[in-house]
Amino acid sequence: MSMSSDPAPHDVHAFSDSEREAVYRAIHSRRDVRSQFLPKPVPVDVLSRILHAAHHAPSVGFMQPWNFIIVESPETKRRVHEAFERANREAAEKFAGDRQELYRSLKLEGILEAPIGICVTCDRGRTGPVVLGRTHMPTMDLYSSVCAVQNLWLAARAEGLGMGWVSIFSPEVLQQALAIPEHITLIGYFCLGYVSAFKAKPDLETVGWLPRAPLEELVYFDHWGQSDAAHPLTGHLRERDEVLG
Amino acid sequence: MSMSSDPAPHDVHAFSDSEREAVYRAIHSRRDVRSQFLPKPVPVDVLSRILHAAHHAPSVGFMQPWNFIIVESPETKRRVHEAFERANREAAEKFAGDRQELYRSLKLEGILEAPIGICVTCDRGRTGPVVLGRTHMPTMDLYSSVCAVQNLWLAARAEGLGMGWVSIFSPEVLQQALAIPEHITLIGYFCLGYVSAFKAKPDLETVGWLPRAPLEELVYFDHWGQSDAAHPLTGHLRERDEVLG
Repeated sequence: MSMSSDPAPHDVHAFSDSEREAVYRAIHSRRDVRSQFLPKPVPVDVLSRILHAAHHAPSVGFMQPWNFIIVESPETKRRVHEAFERANREAAEKFAGDRQELYRSLKLEGILEAPIGICVTCDRGRTGPVVLGRTHMPTMDLYSSVCAVQNLWLAARAEGLGMGWVSIFSPEVLQQALAIPEHITLIGYFCLGYVSAFKAKPDLETVGWLPRAPLEELVYFDHWGQSDAAHPLTGHLRERDEVLG
Repeated sequence: MSMSSDPAPHDVHAFSDSEREAVYRAIHSRRDVRSQFLPKPVPVDVLSRILHAAHHAPSVGFMQPWNFIIVESPETKRRVHEAFERANREAAEKFAGDRQELYRSLKLEGILEAPIGICVTCDRGRTGPVVLGRTHMPTMDLYSSVCAVQNLWLAARAEGLGMGWVSIFSPEVLQQALAIPEHITLIGYFCLGYVSAFKAKPDLETVGWLPRAPLEELVYFDHWGQSDAAHPLTGHLRERDEVLG
Protein backbone atom coordinates (compact mmCIF):
# COMPACT_ATOMS: atom_id res chain seq x y z
CA MET A 1 0.00 0.00 0.00
CA SER A 2 1.33 3.40 -0.93
CA MET A 3 -0.25 5.28 1.96
CA SER A 4 0.68 5.46 5.61
CA SER A 5 -1.21 6.79 8.61
CA ASP A 6 1.99 7.89 10.35
CA PRO A 7 2.56 11.62 10.37
CA ALA A 8 4.78 12.40 7.37
CA PRO A 9 7.97 14.35 7.71
CA HIS A 10 7.21 17.83 6.42
CA ASP A 11 7.79 17.81 2.67
CA VAL A 12 10.23 20.37 1.30
CA HIS A 13 7.66 21.57 -1.27
CA ALA A 14 4.74 21.75 1.17
CA PHE A 15 3.49 25.19 2.20
CA SER A 16 3.91 26.28 5.84
CA ASP A 17 0.98 25.38 8.09
CA SER A 18 -0.38 28.94 7.96
CA GLU A 19 -0.07 29.14 4.16
CA ARG A 20 -1.76 25.77 3.77
CA GLU A 21 -4.58 26.84 6.08
CA ALA A 22 -5.06 29.98 3.96
CA VAL A 23 -5.59 27.84 0.86
CA TYR A 24 -8.12 25.67 2.71
CA ARG A 25 -9.80 28.79 4.09
CA ALA A 26 -10.35 30.05 0.52
CA ILE A 27 -11.70 26.66 -0.56
CA HIS A 28 -14.04 26.15 2.41
CA SER A 29 -15.30 29.72 2.82
CA ARG A 30 -15.94 30.33 -0.91
CA ARG A 31 -19.66 30.76 -1.60
CA ASP A 32 -21.86 31.07 -4.65
CA VAL A 33 -23.04 34.59 -3.86
CA ARG A 34 -26.40 35.87 -5.07
CA SER A 35 -27.76 38.20 -2.39
CA GLN A 36 -25.10 40.08 -0.47
CA PHE A 37 -23.44 42.32 -3.07
CA LEU A 38 -22.41 45.85 -2.05
CA PRO A 39 -21.99 48.76 -4.48
CA LYS A 40 -18.42 49.38 -3.23
CA PRO A 41 -16.08 49.70 -6.24
CA VAL A 42 -13.63 46.91 -7.04
CA PRO A 43 -10.11 48.37 -7.44
CA VAL A 44 -8.43 47.61 -10.77
CA ASP A 45 -5.34 46.10 -9.15
CA VAL A 46 -7.57 43.57 -7.37
CA LEU A 47 -9.43 42.78 -10.58
CA SER A 48 -6.11 42.39 -12.40
CA ARG A 49 -4.83 39.93 -9.79
CA ILE A 50 -7.90 37.71 -9.90
CA LEU A 51 -7.96 37.68 -13.72
CA HIS A 52 -4.30 36.64 -13.73
CA ALA A 53 -5.19 33.86 -11.28
CA ALA A 54 -7.76 32.65 -13.84
CA HIS A 55 -5.24 32.96 -16.68
CA HIS A 56 -2.80 30.74 -14.78
CA ALA A 57 -5.23 27.81 -14.71
CA PRO A 58 -4.13 24.57 -16.37
CA SER A 59 -5.14 24.25 -20.01
CA VAL A 60 -5.07 21.29 -22.34
CA GLY A 61 -2.09 21.54 -24.69
CA PHE A 62 -1.40 24.96 -23.09
CA MET A 63 -4.06 26.41 -25.42
CA GLN A 64 -5.37 28.97 -22.88
CA PRO A 65 -8.74 28.96 -24.64
CA TRP A 66 -10.44 31.51 -22.37
CA ASN A 67 -11.57 35.11 -22.77
CA PHE A 68 -13.02 37.36 -20.09
CA ILE A 69 -15.65 39.98 -20.85
CA ILE A 70 -15.86 42.57 -18.07
CA VAL A 71 -19.41 43.93 -17.86
CA GLU A 72 -19.82 47.28 -16.14
CA SER A 73 -22.44 49.11 -18.19
CA PRO A 74 -25.97 49.24 -16.77
CA GLU A 75 -27.54 48.62 -20.20
CA THR A 76 -25.58 45.43 -20.74
CA LYS A 77 -26.40 44.24 -17.24
CA ARG A 78 -30.06 44.94 -17.95
CA ARG A 79 -29.95 42.85 -21.14
CA VAL A 80 -28.24 40.02 -19.25
CA HIS A 81 -30.82 40.27 -16.47
CA GLU A 82 -33.67 40.07 -18.99
CA ALA A 83 -32.11 36.90 -20.43
CA PHE A 84 -32.02 35.46 -16.91
CA GLU A 85 -35.64 36.38 -16.14
CA ARG A 86 -36.91 34.73 -19.31
CA ALA A 87 -34.97 31.51 -18.66
CA ASN A 88 -35.89 31.50 -14.97
CA ARG A 89 -39.63 31.50 -15.74
CA GLU A 90 -39.10 28.45 -17.94
CA ALA A 91 -36.88 26.74 -15.36
CA ALA A 92 -39.39 27.22 -12.52
CA GLU A 93 -42.04 25.33 -14.50
CA LYS A 94 -39.87 22.20 -14.38
CA PHE A 95 -40.51 21.79 -10.65
CA ALA A 96 -43.82 20.69 -9.13
CA GLY A 97 -45.79 21.72 -6.03
CA ASP A 98 -43.84 22.69 -2.92
CA ARG A 99 -40.56 22.32 -4.79
CA GLN A 100 -41.68 24.96 -7.32
CA GLU A 101 -42.77 27.26 -4.50
CA LEU A 102 -39.38 26.87 -2.80
CA TYR A 103 -37.63 27.44 -6.16
CA ARG A 104 -39.55 30.67 -6.73
CA SER A 105 -38.57 31.92 -3.26
CA LEU A 106 -34.83 31.59 -3.98
CA LYS A 107 -32.69 34.50 -5.12
CA LEU A 108 -30.52 32.97 -7.81
CA GLU A 109 -28.49 35.88 -9.19
CA GLY A 110 -27.10 39.34 -8.41
CA ILE A 111 -26.73 40.61 -11.99
CA LEU A 112 -27.96 44.17 -11.40
CA GLU A 113 -26.52 44.69 -7.91
CA ALA A 114 -23.01 43.31 -8.43
CA PRO A 115 -20.67 46.09 -9.62
CA ILE A 116 -19.01 43.77 -12.13
CA GLY A 117 -20.17 40.96 -14.36
CA ILE A 118 -17.61 38.63 -15.92
CA CYS A 119 -18.40 36.33 -18.82
CA VAL A 120 -15.93 33.47 -19.34
CA THR A 121 -15.76 31.74 -22.71
CA CYS A 122 -13.84 29.03 -24.58
CA ASP A 123 -12.40 29.49 -28.07
CA ARG A 124 -12.17 25.86 -29.19
CA GLY A 125 -10.35 26.69 -32.41
CA ARG A 126 -7.75 29.00 -30.86
CA THR A 127 -4.65 26.93 -31.62
CA GLY A 128 -5.88 24.94 -34.62
CA PRO A 129 -7.83 21.73 -35.06
CA VAL A 130 -5.38 19.37 -33.31
CA VAL A 131 -4.67 20.03 -29.64
CA LEU A 132 -2.23 18.01 -27.51
CA GLY A 133 -4.38 16.07 -25.02
CA ARG A 134 -7.75 16.79 -26.66
CA THR A 135 -7.83 14.14 -29.40
CA HIS A 136 -9.56 11.46 -27.31
CA MET A 137 -11.37 13.73 -24.85
CA PRO A 138 -12.80 16.58 -26.91
CA THR A 139 -14.31 18.44 -23.94
CA MET A 140 -10.88 19.07 -22.38
CA ASP A 141 -10.77 22.64 -23.73
CA LEU A 142 -14.11 23.48 -22.10
CA TYR A 143 -12.78 22.00 -18.85
CA SER A 144 -9.69 24.24 -19.09
CA SER A 145 -11.92 27.32 -19.06
CA VAL A 146 -13.78 25.87 -16.05
CA CYS A 147 -10.48 25.47 -14.18
CA ALA A 148 -9.92 29.19 -14.88
CA VAL A 149 -13.33 29.90 -13.34
CA GLN A 150 -12.43 28.07 -10.14
CA ASN A 151 -9.10 29.92 -9.85
CA LEU A 152 -10.99 33.19 -10.32
CA TRP A 153 -13.47 32.22 -7.61
CA LEU A 154 -10.84 31.30 -5.03
CA ALA A 155 -8.71 34.37 -5.75
CA ALA A 156 -11.82 36.53 -5.44
CA ARG A 157 -12.58 34.95 -2.05
CA ALA A 158 -9.07 35.72 -0.81
CA GLU A 159 -9.54 39.35 -1.89
CA GLY A 160 -12.83 39.53 0.04
CA LEU A 161 -14.91 39.49 -3.16
CA GLY A 162 -18.01 37.38 -3.56
CA MET A 163 -18.71 35.68 -6.87
CA GLY A 164 -21.83 33.93 -8.12
CA TRP A 165 -22.26 31.65 -11.17
CA VAL A 166 -25.47 32.36 -13.08
CA SER A 167 -26.35 29.44 -15.36
CA ILE A 168 -30.05 30.15 -15.86
CA PHE A 169 -29.77 31.53 -19.40
CA SER A 170 -30.38 30.26 -22.89
CA PRO A 171 -26.77 30.34 -24.05
CA GLU A 172 -27.82 31.79 -27.44
CA VAL A 173 -29.67 34.68 -25.80
CA LEU A 174 -26.75 35.53 -23.52
CA GLN A 175 -24.30 35.25 -26.43
CA GLN A 176 -26.41 37.76 -28.37
CA ALA A 177 -26.57 40.14 -25.40
CA LEU A 178 -22.76 40.17 -25.25
CA ALA A 179 -22.15 39.95 -29.03
CA ILE A 180 -20.28 36.65 -28.61
CA PRO A 181 -19.79 34.97 -32.01
CA GLU A 182 -21.27 31.55 -32.64
CA HIS A 183 -17.88 29.79 -32.86
CA ILE A 184 -17.09 30.80 -29.27
CA THR A 185 -18.53 28.65 -26.46
CA LEU A 186 -20.07 30.35 -23.46
CA ILE A 187 -18.85 28.84 -20.20
CA GLY A 188 -20.51 31.03 -17.61
CA TYR A 189 -21.62 34.45 -16.43
CA PHE A 190 -20.41 35.57 -13.02
CA CYS A 191 -21.46 38.35 -10.66
CA LEU A 192 -18.59 39.87 -8.71
CA GLY A 193 -18.33 42.37 -5.89
CA TYR A 194 -17.67 43.01 -2.25
CA VAL A 195 -20.33 41.53 0.01
CA SER A 196 -22.00 42.21 3.35
CA ALA A 197 -21.37 38.60 4.45
CA PHE A 198 -20.13 35.20 3.35
CA LYS A 199 -22.62 32.61 4.57
CA ALA A 200 -21.31 29.64 6.56
CA LYS A 201 -22.98 27.13 4.20
CA PRO A 202 -24.33 27.03 0.65
CA ASP A 203 -27.81 28.58 0.39
CA LEU A 204 -29.25 25.40 -1.13
CA GLU A 205 -28.01 23.39 1.86
CA THR A 206 -29.42 25.94 4.33
CA VAL A 207 -32.92 25.99 2.80
CA GLY A 208 -33.03 22.19 2.63
CA TRP A 209 -32.94 21.89 -1.18
CA LEU A 210 -30.35 19.08 -0.87
CA PRO A 211 -28.06 17.93 1.96
CA ARG A 212 -24.24 17.77 1.87
CA ALA A 213 -23.29 14.22 0.84
CA PRO A 214 -20.94 12.29 3.17
CA LEU A 215 -17.64 12.20 1.29
CA GLU A 216 -16.76 8.69 2.45
CA GLU A 217 -19.69 7.40 0.36
CA LEU A 218 -18.30 9.05 -2.77
CA VAL A 219 -14.80 7.58 -2.56
CA TYR A 220 -14.04 4.19 -4.11
CA PHE A 221 -10.86 2.13 -4.15
CA ASP A 222 -9.23 0.68 -7.24
CA HIS A 223 -12.45 0.49 -9.24
CA TRP A 224 -15.97 1.88 -9.36
CA GLY A 225 -18.27 0.87 -6.50
CA GLN A 226 -15.61 -0.62 -4.24
CA SER A 227 -15.81 0.89 -0.75
CA ASP A 228 -13.36 -0.17 1.93
CA ALA A 229 -14.36 0.47 5.54
CA ALA A 230 -11.02 -0.97 6.68
CA HIS A 231 -8.91 1.41 4.59
CA PRO A 232 -7.40 4.05 6.89
CA LEU A 233 -8.53 6.80 4.51
CA THR A 234 -12.20 5.97 5.15
CA GLY A 235 -11.99 6.85 8.84
CA HIS A 236 -10.12 10.06 8.07
CA LEU A 237 -12.77 11.09 5.55
CA ARG A 238 -15.54 10.49 8.07
CA GLU A 239 -13.77 12.44 10.83
CA ARG A 240 -13.21 15.43 8.60
CA ASP A 241 -16.83 15.24 7.38
CA GLU A 242 -17.82 15.74 11.01
CA VAL A 243 -15.40 18.63 11.54
CA LEU A 244 -16.38 20.48 8.35
CA GLY A 245 -20.12 19.80 8.81
CA MET B 1 -17.68 53.30 -13.75
CA SER B 2 -17.66 50.84 -10.91
CA MET B 3 -13.88 50.50 -10.59
CA SER B 4 -11.31 52.81 -9.10
CA SER B 5 -7.53 52.84 -9.31
CA ASP B 6 -7.18 54.29 -5.78
CA PRO B 7 -5.98 51.82 -3.19
CA ALA B 8 -9.10 50.36 -1.55
CA PRO B 9 -9.58 50.38 2.18
CA HIS B 10 -8.93 46.83 3.32
CA ASP B 11 -12.21 44.94 3.09
CA VAL B 12 -13.44 43.24 6.26
CA HIS B 13 -13.84 39.91 4.40
CA ALA B 14 -10.46 40.05 2.62
CA PHE B 15 -7.75 37.67 3.78
CA SER B 16 -4.62 39.12 5.43
CA ASP B 17 -1.81 39.92 2.97
CA SER B 18 0.07 36.75 3.90
CA GLU B 19 -3.02 34.53 3.55
CA ARG B 20 -3.86 36.11 0.21
CA GLU B 21 -0.30 35.56 -1.02
CA ALA B 22 -0.56 31.89 0.00
CA VAL B 23 -3.63 31.48 -2.22
CA TYR B 24 -1.82 33.13 -5.13
CA ARG B 25 1.26 31.01 -4.45
CA ALA B 26 -0.85 27.85 -4.83
CA ILE B 27 -2.39 29.16 -8.04
CA HIS B 28 0.86 30.33 -9.65
CA SER B 29 3.14 27.48 -8.56
CA ARG B 30 0.69 24.66 -9.41
CA ARG B 31 2.02 22.53 -12.27
CA ASP B 32 0.70 19.71 -14.43
CA VAL B 33 3.24 17.16 -13.21
CA ARG B 34 4.32 14.26 -15.40
CA SER B 35 7.98 13.56 -14.66
CA GLN B 36 9.02 14.31 -11.10
CA PHE B 37 7.05 11.84 -8.97
CA LEU B 38 8.72 10.28 -5.94
CA PRO B 39 7.70 6.93 -4.41
CA LYS B 40 7.32 8.59 -0.96
CA PRO B 41 3.96 7.53 0.53
CA VAL B 42 1.10 10.03 0.76
CA PRO B 43 -0.27 10.10 4.33
CA VAL B 44 -4.00 9.41 4.62
CA ASP B 45 -4.70 12.61 6.55
CA VAL B 46 -3.22 14.61 3.64
CA LEU B 47 -5.26 12.63 1.11
CA SER B 48 -8.38 13.16 3.20
CA ARG B 49 -7.82 16.95 3.31
CA ILE B 50 -7.37 17.30 -0.44
CA LEU B 51 -10.40 15.10 -1.21
CA HIS B 52 -12.49 17.25 1.13
CA ALA B 53 -11.19 20.32 -0.72
CA ALA B 54 -12.52 18.76 -3.93
CA HIS B 55 -15.83 17.88 -2.26
CA HIS B 56 -16.29 21.53 -1.23
CA ALA B 57 -16.24 22.74 -4.82
CA PRO B 58 -19.32 24.57 -6.12
CA SER B 59 -21.90 22.33 -7.79
CA VAL B 60 -24.94 23.17 -9.85
CA GLY B 61 -28.11 22.80 -7.76
CA PHE B 62 -25.82 21.50 -4.97
CA MET B 63 -25.89 18.10 -6.68
CA GLN B 64 -22.27 17.18 -5.81
CA PRO B 65 -22.14 14.88 -8.83
CA TRP B 66 -18.56 13.67 -8.31
CA ASN B 67 -16.97 10.40 -7.24
CA PHE B 68 -13.29 9.75 -6.62
CA ILE B 69 -11.68 6.39 -7.37
CA ILE B 70 -8.36 6.01 -5.55
CA VAL B 71 -6.03 3.80 -7.58
CA GLU B 72 -3.17 2.18 -5.68
CA SER B 73 -2.90 -1.34 -7.10
CA PRO B 74 -0.10 -1.97 -9.60
CA GLU B 75 -2.36 -4.09 -11.84
CA THR B 76 -4.93 -1.33 -12.19
CA LYS B 77 -2.20 1.24 -12.86
CA ARG B 78 -0.82 -1.09 -15.54
CA ARG B 79 -4.24 -1.36 -17.21
CA VAL B 80 -4.59 2.42 -17.11
CA HIS B 81 -1.10 2.84 -18.54
CA GLU B 82 -1.87 0.44 -21.40
CA ALA B 83 -4.96 2.51 -22.21
CA PHE B 84 -2.74 5.61 -22.30
CA GLU B 85 -0.10 3.99 -24.55
CA ARG B 86 -2.68 2.89 -27.08
CA ALA B 87 -4.29 6.34 -27.26
CA ASN B 88 -0.93 8.10 -27.31
CA ARG B 89 0.18 6.22 -30.44
CA GLU B 90 -3.02 7.37 -32.17
CA ALA B 91 -2.61 10.95 -30.89
CA ALA B 92 1.00 11.26 -32.09
CA GLU B 93 -0.10 10.48 -35.65
CA LYS B 94 -2.20 13.65 -35.69
CA PHE B 95 0.91 15.83 -35.75
CA ALA B 96 3.22 16.21 -38.74
CA GLY B 97 7.01 16.47 -39.14
CA ASP B 98 8.98 18.31 -36.44
CA ARG B 99 5.84 18.77 -34.40
CA GLN B 100 5.33 14.98 -34.24
CA GLU B 101 8.98 14.50 -33.28
CA LEU B 102 8.62 17.06 -30.48
CA TYR B 103 5.35 15.41 -29.39
CA ARG B 104 7.01 12.00 -29.17
CA SER B 105 9.82 13.44 -27.04
CA LEU B 106 7.40 14.73 -24.38
CA LYS B 107 6.62 12.80 -21.20
CA LEU B 108 2.88 13.21 -20.85
CA GLU B 109 1.97 11.10 -17.82
CA GLY B 110 3.30 9.55 -14.59
CA ILE B 111 0.76 6.73 -14.23
CA LEU B 112 3.16 4.02 -13.07
CA GLU B 113 5.49 6.20 -10.99
CA ALA B 114 2.93 8.23 -9.06
CA PRO B 115 1.97 6.44 -5.82
CA ILE B 116 -1.69 7.33 -6.27
CA GLY B 117 -4.03 7.65 -9.21
CA ILE B 118 -7.36 9.44 -8.79
CA CYS B 119 -10.19 9.15 -11.26
CA VAL B 120 -12.85 11.88 -11.03
CA THR B 121 -16.30 11.27 -12.50
CA CYS B 122 -19.72 12.90 -12.86
CA ASP B 123 -23.00 11.13 -12.10
CA ARG B 124 -25.38 13.22 -14.19
CA GLY B 125 -28.48 11.48 -12.85
CA ARG B 126 -27.55 11.69 -9.17
CA THR B 127 -30.36 13.95 -8.02
CA GLY B 128 -32.97 13.21 -10.68
CA PRO B 129 -33.67 14.54 -14.15
CA VAL B 130 -34.31 18.19 -13.22
CA VAL B 131 -31.45 20.08 -11.58
CA LEU B 132 -31.64 23.70 -10.41
CA GLY B 133 -29.40 25.71 -12.77
CA ARG B 134 -28.90 22.94 -15.36
CA THR B 135 -32.07 23.28 -17.44
CA HIS B 136 -30.64 25.74 -19.97
CA MET B 137 -26.96 24.79 -19.66
CA PRO B 138 -26.86 21.00 -19.57
CA THR B 139 -23.07 20.77 -19.16
CA MET B 140 -23.15 22.52 -15.77
CA ASP B 141 -22.90 19.21 -13.90
CA LEU B 142 -19.74 18.24 -15.78
CA TYR B 143 -18.33 21.68 -14.96
CA SER B 144 -19.07 21.12 -11.26
CA SER B 145 -16.84 18.04 -11.29
CA VAL B 146 -14.13 20.09 -13.03
CA CYS B 147 -14.31 22.72 -10.27
CA ALA B 148 -13.70 19.85 -7.84
CA VAL B 149 -10.61 18.90 -9.86
CA GLN B 150 -9.17 22.40 -9.61
CA ASN B 151 -9.77 22.50 -5.83
CA LEU B 152 -8.01 19.12 -5.56
CA TRP B 153 -5.08 20.42 -7.60
CA LEU B 154 -4.58 23.58 -5.54
CA ALA B 155 -4.95 21.77 -2.21
CA ALA B 156 -2.43 19.17 -3.42
CA ARG B 157 0.02 21.96 -4.30
CA ALA B 158 -0.32 23.48 -0.82
CA GLU B 159 0.43 20.04 0.67
CA GLY B 160 3.56 19.76 -1.50
CA LEU B 161 1.95 17.14 -3.78
CA GLY B 162 2.24 17.25 -7.53
CA MET B 163 -0.73 16.33 -9.68
CA GLY B 164 -0.99 15.67 -13.41
CA TRP B 165 -4.10 15.41 -15.61
CA VAL B 166 -3.88 12.58 -18.13
CA SER B 167 -6.43 13.05 -20.92
CA ILE B 168 -4.85 10.82 -23.56
CA PHE B 169 -7.27 7.92 -23.22
CA SER B 170 -10.28 6.62 -25.09
CA PRO B 171 -12.84 7.29 -22.36
CA GLU B 172 -14.51 3.90 -23.02
CA VAL B 173 -11.23 2.02 -22.53
CA LEU B 174 -10.43 3.83 -19.29
CA GLN B 175 -13.99 3.31 -18.03
CA GLN B 176 -13.59 -0.42 -18.65
CA ALA B 177 -10.23 -0.51 -16.86
CA LEU B 178 -11.87 1.03 -13.77
CA ALA B 179 -15.25 -0.73 -14.12
CA ILE B 180 -17.04 2.61 -14.43
CA PRO B 181 -20.63 2.07 -15.61
CA GLU B 182 -21.78 3.64 -18.87
CA HIS B 183 -24.20 6.05 -17.19
CA ILE B 184 -21.30 7.68 -15.33
CA THR B 185 -19.22 10.31 -17.17
CA LEU B 186 -15.45 10.17 -16.88
CA ILE B 187 -13.98 13.62 -16.17
CA GLY B 188 -10.30 12.86 -15.77
CA TYR B 189 -7.54 10.62 -14.48
CA PHE B 190 -4.92 12.23 -12.24
CA CYS B 191 -1.49 11.16 -11.06
CA LEU B 192 -0.66 12.28 -7.53
CA GLY B 193 2.45 12.17 -5.37
CA TYR B 194 5.31 14.04 -3.81
CA VAL B 195 7.77 15.39 -6.37
CA SER B 196 11.46 16.17 -6.68
CA ALA B 197 10.66 19.64 -8.03
CA PHE B 198 7.92 21.97 -9.18
CA LYS B 199 9.05 23.58 -12.41
CA ALA B 200 8.88 27.37 -12.71
CA LYS B 201 6.78 27.20 -15.91
CA PRO B 202 4.52 24.73 -17.71
CA ASP B 203 6.52 22.12 -19.66
CA LEU B 204 4.75 22.99 -22.91
CA GLU B 205 5.78 26.63 -22.51
CA THR B 206 9.40 25.66 -21.72
CA VAL B 207 9.79 23.39 -24.77
CA GLY B 208 8.25 26.00 -27.07
CA TRP B 209 5.06 24.10 -27.86
CA LEU B 210 3.03 27.31 -27.34
CA PRO B 211 3.79 30.65 -25.64
CA ARG B 212 1.90 32.17 -22.69
CA ALA B 213 -0.74 34.52 -24.15
CA PRO B 214 -0.69 38.15 -22.94
CA LEU B 215 -3.75 38.42 -20.71
CA GLU B 216 -4.58 41.97 -21.80
CA GLU B 217 -5.40 40.58 -25.26
CA LEU B 218 -7.91 38.12 -23.77
CA VAL B 219 -9.92 40.67 -21.78
CA TYR B 220 -12.80 42.53 -23.38
CA PHE B 221 -15.08 45.22 -22.03
CA ASP B 222 -18.87 45.16 -22.13
CA HIS B 223 -19.06 42.90 -25.18
CA TRP B 224 -16.99 40.47 -27.22
CA GLY B 225 -14.03 41.95 -29.10
CA GLN B 226 -14.02 45.35 -27.41
CA SER B 227 -10.57 46.15 -26.07
CA ASP B 228 -9.97 49.41 -24.23
CA ALA B 229 -6.38 50.63 -23.99
CA ALA B 230 -7.57 53.61 -21.93
CA HIS B 231 -9.29 51.47 -19.29
CA PRO B 232 -7.13 51.48 -16.14
CA LEU B 233 -7.46 47.69 -15.91
CA THR B 234 -5.57 47.25 -19.20
CA GLY B 235 -2.37 48.78 -17.86
CA HIS B 236 -2.60 46.75 -14.66
CA LEU B 237 -3.02 43.53 -16.65
CA ARG B 238 0.05 44.33 -18.76
CA GLU B 239 2.19 45.19 -15.71
CA ARG B 240 1.30 41.95 -13.98
CA ASP B 241 1.91 39.98 -17.19
CA GLU B 242 5.47 41.34 -17.04
CA VAL B 243 5.89 40.47 -13.36
CA LEU B 244 4.50 36.93 -13.68
CA GLY B 245 6.29 36.23 -16.97
